[in-house]
Amino acid sequence: MAENCEEKDILSYSICRYSSFSYNYVPENIYSDNSKDQSSRWSSDSNQPPQFLTLKLDRPAIVENITFGKYEKAHVCNLKKFKVLGGLNDEHMIELFEGGLKNDHIAETFTLKKEIHDNLFPCRYIKIVPLQAWGPSCFNFSIWYVKLRGESNWDVVQPCLQWLVTFREKEAIRLCLKHFRQRQFTEAYEALQKRTKVSLEHPILTELHSMLVKHGDFEKSEDLLWQAAEEGLFDQYICDQDYTPKWTPIEPLPNGDNPSTYQPGMRGGHQMCLDLQTESLYLFGGWDGNRDLSDFWVFSVPSKEWTCLSSDTHKEGGPNARSCHKMCLDYERKQIFILGRYLDASMRTAENLKSDFYMYDITSGRWTLITEDTHTMGGPRLIYDHQMVIDIQKQTLYLFGGRVLSSVGSDRSGEPSFSGLYAYHIPTNTWSCIMEDSPTLKSRIGHSMLFHSKRRLLYVFAGQRSKEYLNDFFTYNVDTGQIDIITDGTKKDSGVPSAGFTQRATIDPNKDEIHVLSGLNKEKEKRENVKNSFWVYSIKKNRWSCVYRNENTGQQYWTKMQNLEPVPRFAHQLVYDHIRKVHYLFGGNPGKESLPKIRLDDFWVLKLCRLSTEHLLRQCKYLLRKYKFQELAERDPHAAMLYLQNDLASIVDHKNIQEREEFESLASTLFRSPGDETEGTEETILADTSTHHMARTELFDQLVAFFPEHMSQPKGNLVDLIPLT
Amino acid sequence: MAENCEEKDILSYSICRYSSFSYNYVPENIYSDNSKDQSSRWSSDSNQPPQFLTLKLDRPAIVENITFGKYEKAHVCNLKKFKVLGGLNDEHMIELFEGGLKNDHIAETFTLKKEIHDNLFPCRYIKIVPLQAWGPSCFNFSIWYVKLRGESNWDVVQPCLQWLVTFREKEAIRLCLKHFRQRQFTEAYEALQKRTKVSLEHPILTELHSMLVKHGDFEKSEDLLWQAAEEGLFDQYICDQDYTPKWTPIEPLPNGDNPSTYQPGMRGGHQMCLDLQTESLYLFGGWDGNRDLSDFWVFSVPSKEWTCLSSDTHKEGGPNARSCHKMCLDYERKQIFILGRYLDASMRTAENLKSDFYMYDITSGRWTLITEDTHTMGGPRLIYDHQMVIDIQKQTLYLFGGRVLSSVGSDRSGEPSFSGLYAYHIPTNTWSCIMEDSPTLKSRIGHSMLFHSKRRLLYVFAGQRSKEYLNDFFTYNVDTGQIDIITDGTKKDSGVPSAGFTQRATIDPNKDEIHVLSGLNKEKEKRENVKNSFWVYSIKKNRWSCVYRNENTGQQYWTKMQNLEPVPRFAHQLVYDHIRKVHYLFGGNPGKESLPKIRLDDFWVLKLCRLSTEHLLRQCKYLLRKYKFQELAERDPHAAMLYLQNDLASIVDHKNIQEREEFESLASTLFRSPGDETEGTEETILADTSTHHMARTELFDQLVAFFPEHMSQPKGNLVDLIPLT
Repeated sequence: MAENCEEKDILSYSICRYSSFSYNYVPENIYSDNSKDQSSRWSSDSNQPPQFLTLKLDRPAIVENITFGKYEKAHVCNLKKFKVLGGLNDEHMIELFEGGLKNDHIAETFTLKKEIHDNLFPCRYIKIVPLQAWGPSCFNFSIWYVKLRGESNWDVVQPCLQWLVTFREKEAIRLCLKHFRQRQFTEAYEALQKRTKVSLEHPILTELHSMLVKHGDFEKSEDLLWQAAEEGLFDQYICDQDYTPKWTPIEPLPNGDNPSTYQPGMRGGHQMCLDLQTESLYLFGGWDGNRDLSDFWVFSVPSKEWTCLSSDTHKEGGPNARSCHKMCLDYERKQIFILGRYLDASMRTAENLKSDFYMYDITSGRWTLITEDTHTMGGPRLIYDHQMVIDIQKQTLYLFGGRVLSSVGSDRSGEPSFSGLYAYHIPTNTWSCIMEDSPTLKSRIGHSMLFHSKRRLLYVFAGQRSKEYLNDFFTYNVDTGQIDIITDGTKKDSGVPSAGFTQRATIDPNKDEIHVLSGLNKEKEKRENVKNSFWVYSIKKNRWSCVYRNENTGQQYWTKMQNLEPVPRFAHQLVYDHIRKVHYLFGGNPGKESLPKIRLDDFWVLKLCRLSTEHLLRQCKYLLRKYKFQELAERDPHAAMLYLQNDLASIVDHKNIQEREEFESLASTLFRSPGDETEGTEETILADTSTHHMARTELFDQLVAFFPEHMSQPKGNLVDLIPLT
Repeated sequence: MAENCEEKDILSYSICRYSSFSYNYVPENIYSDNSKDQSSRWSSDSNQPPQFLTLKLDRPAIVENITFGKYEKAHVCNLKKFKVLGGLNDEHMIELFEGGLKNDHIAETFTLKKEIHDNLFPCRYIKIVPLQAWGPSCFNFSIWYVKLRGESNWDVVQPCLQWLVTFREKEAIRLCLKHFRQRQFTEAYEALQKRTKVSLEHPILTELHSMLVKHGDFEKSEDLLWQAAEEGLFDQYICDQDYTPKWTPIEPLPNGDNPSTYQPGMRGGHQMCLDLQTESLYLFGGWDGNRDLSDFWVFSVPSKEWTCLSSDTHKEGGPNARSCHKMCLDYERKQIFILGRYLDASMRTAENLKSDFYMYDITSGRWTLITEDTHTMGGPRLIYDHQMVIDIQKQTLYLFGGRVLSSVGSDRSGEPSFSGLYAYHIPTNTWSCIMEDSPTLKSRIGHSMLFHSKRRLLYVFAGQRSKEYLNDFFTYNVDTGQIDIITDGTKKDSGVPSAGFTQRATIDPNKDEIHVLSGLNKEKEKRENVKNSFWVYSIKKNRWSCVYRNENTGQQYWTKMQNLEPVPRFAHQLVYDHIRKVHYLFGGNPGKESLPKIRLDDFWVLKLCRLSTEHLLRQCKYLLRKYKFQELAERDPHAAMLYLQNDLASIVDHKNIQEREEFESLASTLFRSPGDETEGTEETILADTSTHHMARTELFDQLVAFFPEHMSQPKGNLVDLIPLT
């Protein structure tokens, strides 16, 4: 038994099974935490898979986390990669965690998956499967100490067990029902349903099955699908589909003959922010390729007009010309905050190295210099390429990262210095340093930081630290200070945007989504290059999806695309209107080696579009009609031809090449001789069901995929679950 | 597509899925066999699991073997360990092979599992899963070339597909039927069975279910089990149980006062062989601790008497004193053959180093010197610790291995020399060397070799080669010359006897079993030591089982055991009477460090016993009555007490401590208060079935385990197959 079971939520366990052990390194050694004792560990007798330890809990419990103790020094046998599984018996387990330990002496605790299908998942067995050790392949796996924590109170666990048993029973019955219906075991289907009262699916699907598969009534089937669409039954499916990005260039209305007076000029390293309430975009500063700018603009989305608020803010008591600064807008109080700037080495005099901090009051049109140097107030030194976000509710600005500028002399003396995490409370004009640059919170430049106003979390992603490209992703809770790592960036995964330091990110707190437009990428073994890719991260699903990627680099290609998609770039600005679901992109550096001084002044709107219900409904109808045509073709080629020319032709999406080609090939099936059948497949072997039953069932299964999973028959098939050996 | 598809049985395939690849090492490189091209290979981009290649065959086929091409030199990325899976779709596959490649340049071909449930198994997908590379853990996995061979003729494959589909359908229905019966979904059960005509089990089991679970008629249930036993339905179960070894010392009848005249003296390195027809054991030679012996004895099993045929065979024209020779008996022709001997270094003169070869004719009692030196006839040189077996049907002796003795001078000059595989055809007095010591057939000493007269195979197992302890196991077909490797000995597996060089093995061609009594073991990292273990290898099941293992080493223990089990030893003799299923053991060296000259003269008979039908039936009745008592106890404690004292007491095996204790504890359940129930389990949660249904079903499932699998309900449960996530 594990020691120290006094702590309230510690779950006691015993070793139930194991793959192997060496010498005296028996599995039972993991009961006690003796970090000074070399021999107080389990060690496998090889690293050949499968290696595992199965722990049996004294009683069923909801296992919340697992703690691994370690040796007092780094050790080659530590687990670099492992999995944790759990279940009510030791043969049927699900994965609860996959990850790795750091090769150090600090105990680590990992949260385990404790819910399935929104219910707490009770375990009696926990299986630890080592996959990789820190040392080279000759070293075995060692585990020094394991502590499990969770809830074993029978009053909590019993209902979960109850639920799990019921769930499995119900799913078993649903699989039977699905199978019986597919095989037309009507009587057995009815008897089972009557006895168990388990329903296979939403009634509309049962009706669809009856119309489509049983009666072959395709018109009624179309009606039912229309009805389903009306009732919003396809919304979930549509929501699960990836977005299609739709870029549109914004042509501002001319405000005179000279473009420089009616729209901001070419630039990179500028700042832009949005007043959600008035749909006004504010733009300030940047670098035009030759010099820093201090012009200040506003674009009104409703009127499509740029207005130059000031051609030089410095003259009006505002900030002097700058780039690589940050700007935030409080739309409740109509205030804009500006902090930081980049200084060329030659400019880094003691006077210039002060971190000035300005506020612009939109209503009065006035600038205020809050302080000449935030550092003297407990805030950051002069920084650039940092991130700044605003918590409007609590009137607090959060700043994280950025490179600290110092005079040329001091710069040479040591490592570059990065600024930590700071908070500025606006009403009291108070700065506080939450954390300096540290291993717990590695500071950086070129990262993204977003504030989720509902979850009260800062999301920090990627960035660069001297020559190190970071690819981690974590949250910081502004109220509790808790840091949660979403991905530590050590795992290679092509389904995550690669380490970048010029990506632009936005957040949608309503949809719980983060959007990333990548610019300059640092891809393994490749030269740095600029190419477009757009990623969406679903916070709820903890899942990235790449909405698009355009790897074209030729001048010619991008000239052709100039009104369709923005050329890849960095040092641009992207802001997001999460109410109207619209992104705005302005300017940036296209990274042309031949023209290093060129900057952009194009202005785009980006909408992320999803499949519409209408489009999906049309797709359903196309499937139905295509199939009806095939049945018709067998018994009445003439009628089939008419149907093809009318009903089917009218529904085809002729813009969809694949569909058009398929449609065109359908006619030829009319003239195929009956012997032309392809070689028998698994389906044709099962042909003791009615002529069209199998084919219609297949079509039905295709249509079911558009309905929410919880309303539909189980996805799996009973026969696929049959063990073959 | 793979090149070279002209060869008739080569299956063409294409890459269907893969885990990853590096640079230009794309999966498609495995189509072509370019052993000189470093880059003509698939290489994963890491060795982190899971890595795989999934190949899709152009059409379904029975895949018989897989060939891996290699680079022209050894390569760190070669697969030291991998698995091959196959199936009709790429999500539901079964394991077809697990093994590894040698790290050399020679292509290797592996036979894949191609049958399940005695039917050919058609595949459409083949998945190769690398598990370990030859190099340290920093190297990725590479596959250079893959060729698949098999049968894709539709006339052959179609019926297999048909069978597989039907099999899965049937098993699915059987799982449903089992589940419905367990849950008492009677109507659904009946409807399903009526419609599908699939039977769940043998009728006697259905009847047992009805009597036991439905009606609770325990007497009728006992009758049914008795009937099942009568019909031999338990034979399969009994046959699958491990043997219990039963040793009995043989006390030969005294033939005078002086033991040395009525039984052979202490010795090791002697030979013994059996005349199956007369049940006579012949014993010749050996080393008594001080000198080689040349006495020749026969033991008559029926009369339990030893007879000394000669106190010195050399005097009668037979072999001179020797040990480490080999002896074979042809019971058809009543001839005994003797070859080989060990010579002390001081004795290795040219004259002595001749390999003499004797035959003893049992009927006439005469010795014949067949040749003074087999080597001059094309046979082996003088050898010891070799193996010799006889093929009585074709009158041929087979010799394999043994150390070649050479004069002391020549011995120093080089490596020890091992003798190859020789055949001696008795009627024509012809020797032939089948194969010299070679990597294909590694020669050795201290191995086991057995001849399977029905399969016409030599089984070769273990042995030693200088400091290398071999643990391989292979067959040599004496008619075709084909070598098949059963295990190459590289895989660590605690379920196989460990590498030994003094084990004694026997074969039972009727039961298709090999028996191994291990002596001196070479276990990893441990000093050589002598301990008893007995293993049985089932040729049909390709499965080892350890019948017993006795690790006791103390003098005291073995003194106590002297009439119960032979003390561990080596250099002993073990012969087997496969007609009467009896082993005989005589003498040997107990390996006592303190008394190195001591040898043994004990004589044992070993019987391998199995559970009897009567015993199993009693066990069934015990289960039934124990359960009946529990039901009785709930409603009528008094009747239960009487039942316990009479019916149950009469059936308990009081020698079985566990059962006796259980029986004794049963009485106490009568006085347990009703609230004493243990915490709810999965079963108690499912309690909406009749009071005793669950418990009776559990008992039924316990009893079903004694019936042959093909007659019983499926072992699995539907709910256990339900995926939880």
